Amino acid sequence: MKIISDSVSFSTEGFNDIKDLTGLVEKRLMANRLKDGIVNIFVPGSTGGVTTIEYEPGLVEDFSRLMEKLAPSNIPYNHDKRWGDGNGFSHVRAALIGPSMNVPFSDGRLSLGTWQQIVFVDFDNRARTRTVLLQFMGV
Amino acid sequence: MKIISDSVSFSTEGFNDIKDLTGLVEKRLMANRLKDGIVNIFVPGSTGGVTTIEYEPGLVEDFSRLMEKLAPSNIPYNHDKRWGDGNGFSHVRAALIGPSMNVPFSDGRLSLGTWQQIVFVDFDNRARTRTVLLQFMGV
Amino acid sequence: MKIISDSVSFSTEGFNDIKDLTGLVEKRLMANRLKDGIVNIFVPGSTGGVTTIEYEPGLVEDFSRLMEKLAPSNIPYNHDKRWGDGNGFSHVRAALIGPSMNVPFSDGRLSLGTWQQIVFVDFDNRARTRTVLLQFMGV
Repeated sequence: MKIISDSVSFSTEGFNDIKDLTGLVEKRLMANRLKDGIVNIFVPGSTGGVTTIEYEPGLVEDFSRLMEKLAPSNIPYNHDKRWGDGNGFSHVRAALIGPSMNVPFSDGRLSLGTWQQIVFVDFDNRARTRTVLLQFMGV
Repeated sequence: MKIISDSVSFSTEGFNDIKDLTGLVEKRLMANRLKDGIVNIFVPGSTGGVTTIEYEPGLVEDFSRLMEKLAPSNIPYNHDKRWGDGNGFSHVRAALIGPSMNVPFSDGRLSLGTWQQIVFVDFDNRARTRTVLLQFMGV
Repeated sequence: MKIISDSVSFSTEGFNDIKDLTGLVEKRLMANRLKDGIVNIFVPGSTGGVTTIEYEPGLVEDFSRLMEKLAPSNIPYNHDKRWGDGNGFSHVRAALIGPSMNVPFSDGRLSLGTWQQIVFVDFDNRARTRTVLLQFMGV
């Protein structure tokens, strides 16, 4: 059993920018030559989240609209009064979706559904470079 | 330390059909003869989610109502305009709840609370046969 | 590779009382002398959840307001009609946020962002003593 601490980095545009990480995670799985186990995908920050979705433009927009409806960007947040970052909505959305997800793999392949992709959602209010941690555990 | 790739299958009715998987997961844990570790419960698809709830009819209905309120089934979704599946609401609900959850076990038993059950929520808009992956890691 | 079943206990006030568990989890990680791996943080109960947030008073209040907006405490729940606990809102919030989260660690330190804390959210409607399970897996 091995534990391999890995990561992927990419640029994001903020405001519910949803990035398909499936290919990046698959490449790291192959490079690490593991066959069976889990990969923990973790966002080391408080304005991004991870989940899965069928990554097609319609749903990407639908999910973005859902986030805007649940935690609107145009209402007052106490965070903004105190810190002036203007990204209170980003933080509460990130806490709602969560920073952590595990995906199992078997025979060297991620055990995803056919229409299911791993996505990072950038809830922040500005473009950034993001790093997402991948903790592989397996054989 | 062992890694065991297992799964459970069952039929669902769609429209927030909430299935108690606790007994099924417990049986697989016993069959695999592990004592201490975690089981990663993963939905390999984009219209179902996993969480825990006190599985009694009142709460099952309350949670279903919450999902209908947060992501209504009777509003337009871009996914439906493009693909005609009519299940845009299913996809965004699944992305909100998430496909993955870990449950620890100790001394051969799932470490759940007394009134806490592992549930699969079928957000899709039709009856299906579902398979949920169980990746056991432990000793 | 070791598996260590640990836990932390603390008191909560209910009604979205949000507790920063980061220091407690770090102490247990150090005491268990692991360097690389993951810790599964699990709430063995159906009225609490775990996530991460930037733990400052503004956001703590913002997240509490979001929960009250999404699953209000002053609307009827079927759970309350059947059981009279008056905490239907607590249960559906807990199912929405989820009881389980994994955090990776590397070189003996939790791999959190600078402004990111591990939090337990007590959704119940009364003060309690809470125990959260920590399943460490690593080397």
